[in-house]
Amino acid sequence: MFITNTWYVAARSDEVVADAPLGRKICDQSMVFFRNAAGEIAALEDFCPHRGAPLSLGRVVGDTLVCGYHGLAMGANGRTVSMPCQRVGGFPAIRSFPAHEAHGFIWVWPGEAEKADLALLPPFEWLGNPAYGYGGGLYHIGCDYRLLIDNLMDLTHETYVHASSIGQKEIDDAPCKTRVEGDHVITERFMSGIEAPPFWRMALRMNGLPEDQKVDRWQICHFTPPSHIMIEVGVALAGQGGYHAPDAVKAASWVVDFITPETAHSLHYFWGMARKFKPDDEALTAQIREGQGKIFAEDQEMLERQQQNLLAWPGRRLLMLNIDGGGVQSRKVIDRLLAAQAAPSTPAAA
Amino acid sequence: MFITNTWYVAARSDEVVADAPLGRKICDQSMVFFRNAAGEIAALEDFCPHRGAPLSLGRVVGDTLVCGYHGLAMGANGRTVSMPCQRVGGFPAIRSFPAHEAHGFIWVWPGEAEKADLALLPPFEWLGNPAYGYGGGLYHIGCDYRLLIDNLMDLTHETYVHASSIGQKEIDDAPCKTRVEGDHVITERFMSGIEAPPFWRMALRMNGLPEDQKVDRWQICHFTPPSHIMIEVGVALAGQGGYHAPDAVKAASWVVDFITPETAHSLHYFWGMARKFKPDDEALTAQIREGQGKIFAEDQEMLERQQQNLLAWPGRRLLMLNIDGGGVQSRKVIDRLLAAQAAPSTPAAA
Amino acid sequence: MFITNTWYVAARSDEVVADAPLGRKICDQSMVFFRNAAGEIAALEDFCPHRGAPLSLGRVVGDTLVCGYHGLAMGANGRTVSMPCQRVGGFPAIRSFPAHEAHGFIWVWPGEAEKADLALLPPFEWLGNPAYGYGGGLYHIGCDYRLLIDNLMDLTHETYVHASSIGQKEIDDAPCKTRVEGDHVITERFMSGIEAPPFWRMALRMNGLPEDQKVDRWQICHFTPPSHIMIEVGVALAGQGGYHAPDAVKAASWVVDFITPETAHSLHYFWGMARKFKPDDEALTAQIREGQGKIFAEDQEMLERQQQNLLAWPGRRLLMLNIDGGGVQSRKVIDRLLAAQAAPSTPAAA
Repeated sequence: MFITNTWYVAARSDEVVADAPLGRKICDQSMVFFRNAAGEIAALEDFCPHRGAPLSLGRVVGDTLVCGYHGLAMGANGRTVSMPCQRVGGFPAIRSFPAHEAHGFIWVWPGEAEKADLALLPPFEWLGNPAYGYGGGLYHIGCDYRLLIDNLMDLTHETYVHASSIGQKEIDDAPCKTRVEGDHVITERFMSGIEAPPFWRMALRMNGLPEDQKVDRWQICHFTPPSHIMIEVGVALAGQGGYHAPDAVKAASWVVDFITPETAHSLHYFWGMARKFKPDDEALTAQIREGQGKIFAEDQEMLERQQQNLLAWPGRRLLMLNIDGGGVQSRKVIDRLLAAQAAPSTPAAA
Repeated sequence: MFITNTWYVAARSDEVVADAPLGRKICDQSMVFFRNAAGEIAALEDFCPHRGAPLSLGRVVGDTLVCGYHGLAMGANGRTVSMPCQRVGGFPAIRSFPAHEAHGFIWVWPGEAEKADLALLPPFEWLGNPAYGYGGGLYHIGCDYRLLIDNLMDLTHETYVHASSIGQKEIDDAPCKTRVEGDHVITERFMSGIEAPPFWRMALRMNGLPEDQKVDRWQICHFTPPSHIMIEVGVALAGQGGYHAPDAVKAASWVVDFITPETAHSLHYFWGMARKFKPDDEALTAQIREGQGKIFAEDQEMLERQQQNLLAWPGRRLLMLNIDGGGVQSRKVIDRLLAAQAAPSTPAAA
Repeated sequence: MFITNTWYVAARSDEVVADAPLGRKICDQSMVFFRNAAGEIAALEDFCPHRGAPLSLGRVVGDTLVCGYHGLAMGANGRTVSMPCQRVGGFPAIRSFPAHEAHGFIWVWPGEAEKADLALLPPFEWLGNPAYGYGGGLYHIGCDYRLLIDNLMDLTHETYVHASSIGQKEIDDAPCKTRVEGDHVITERFMSGIEAPPFWRMALRMNGLPEDQKVDRWQICHFTPPSHIMIEVGVALAGQGGYHAPDAVKAASWVVDFITPETAHSLHYFWGMARKFKPDDEALTAQIREGQGKIFAEDQEMLERQQQNLLAWPGRRLLMLNIDGGGVQSRKVIDRLLAAQAAPSTPAAA
């Protein structure tokens, strides 16, 4: 159901403050995140080995997370450090999860700890890149994480779900193409000589470009496992090369979608936008985040009601059209990785 | 559990407006209702054949219901009419349900479409009859539809549940008689020389009759399948013939109860009153609807808590007293029709 | 799961007023409590033998509880007394439960009625004793009743859960001792020469004692079946004998905890305090009740989240430390009584 030997975004950095732990369920595992005295992140099972209380109701003291029920002090490695009047040497350890913080995100590896490898963190070019201005948020959605992958790999839904903001009929009318490069699925769509929708008019203006001219527009959706979707979006003044036009005549961004499964039918959706213009304009960041937040909230009811429908009609097969190609190919990658995860390890020598 | 080869009230006409579809579950089937350009009603499974989104989140365009997710345009017959950039000929159909609109109600046939027959619509004399003034509403109640049948076929509950409005001790004290005529169950009660309760005082006044004299009162409950209950109610000045008294000395109405099962333990309750006096007095219609709405809301907690009790004590047998005869006989009719529905069809020639 | 041949607190006396019945589920049985004309308490199944309506929606008339649906009048013994126009002789009885009222509490015996014995009511010395002032309240908590027993038999949680009121680090640091005397489990802790926490400063003041001197403090938790926990708490001026000091130099109370299981994962918590000072000061009673109510509410989230954790990790074994001894021993008593309850009765002669 879930790829677990991989890195997921567990939280935004600002969700885990110095003193207070954060409880969050990821891939059906209740976890607690906290910072030690140096500010480093630890991730543990949210279960005190003493009597099963959630450690996320406790507080941080020094390098330990102190249970809010009877004062057991838990270390970042899942071993009890101390407890009033108790010898804790024989206390059973709880599970700790590899965790890492970088560029405003806290990552967690919910699978086999010995396979965790920082080299496997995704190398998105906008992450920590000062040429980009980033803003985003977090939504909780009650659906299978793969329904949101489908959603984001088929942007024709913008015309219907987001008709008043980023949608436009030309999206529907432009054919899309999907290709697969290893575990990487790319669905792209190019529109030529169209009107810019409101968001892109603003972006053109911010780049000192005229907003009332025809533009070429692109949407290039990139799926990478387990469930990260980065979408290159942008417009260029028409006829200057489109996606390949020089920076001086275009406006471009990455739409950021980190999807982290919570349970079989719910997920944490870390959405955002990394824009390649006016990176330090914080008022603009706030304005875009607010607008994007409203738009992305429009998907929630559709996704949750779709999930309910699929549960109510479990035997019904869905269509797989060309527009669905991105989702279909992404699910094939996921299925392949899930099968590999379930298979017994190859013996070292046979 | 449900009789399905029959007509149920699915909605009031005003619930399905020109542009917006209405989603409603009937007999455990999620349906969507919409009007084509000519205003005619269609009923479909609430499931887009593309990716399973509920069509009830879409909108009506011309004669089609356009899915709010990716723009599939569905026809009234359950076949896809079009979808941007797609050939839709091979798309699987979804189920359509026979539907019919008449006299302010939308009817649906949730069973085998080929057996649907407009001649089987119930011929209530007040429906569309200008001699009657009608007002009503819709409640959602969390109980088996048969518990509401029991409720309405035994009006002694008025004395207890509706003590302050239509209840009076004389109802309890007057014996009732139940008879069965084919699928039609009738429970009737006649009270002679009693005080009129508040509702009937008002009705007498509206008919230009004295409200401070003794009256004869009647309640004649008619069950017809699947779960329609029409109750003839009225009062006549005492000693003038009661139910058979001339119109000039009486006031009479039909209490209307269309019960439509939603699930095994919930229902849609279309209640109303068709009064045979001042049919065009809209202020009176509004006043009666408000009063009736308050009274009928008093049954909700009792029905839902009774349902919970029956689920908690599943083995417990209930009493079947004479006052319960109407419900008992109605359930026998239902059981007979359910058995016939479950039986294999008779071969044409044996 | 539940000891049933025993007395539980079902309600505070003031919860069952003259006219209105009270519905409450105890040990998974839906019960209704009401008073007859003489004010005596009866407890019955909350199920009308007519059609299964909850009798708790009815009202009391004379010595009967009249069903709010169709008027069946039920007697305190579970037999129908009358019903309009019906002969009720053959109506099936519903179950009645032995009930008893004393000193402000209503007790019920949910098990075999023939084993109910008033001599088995617990003889707490403060109950009905004018030397004590009593105030308390009722909370509904979503956890197994045994988790609350654990909570109350291990007061080290005060340091963490109730840090701002009754908790103090010295509780953690003082060893506790647990002993078992038959079915009675006692966990006690004594602290010497410490600062009095805020509640006890107030109590010293009320007893005309100085509040700024060192004190000796004690906590003696008494578990008796099925799930009553009485805690002797108090302080004495330091060095005067502590728990055994003369009354003139100490302040003492009983913390009262009647735990009544509702379902496998919920309970009714009747909490209170019987103080051995200023027993008639009603303003003080109100002040203490308010303070205690706030403190005891702090346990609710912890207990409910602990319950959810235990359900999510069913295979995980918990630690049993010395501080947990009181809970562990109490559960052993419960397990022994549950086993005896499940065993076939000993034959009279073998």
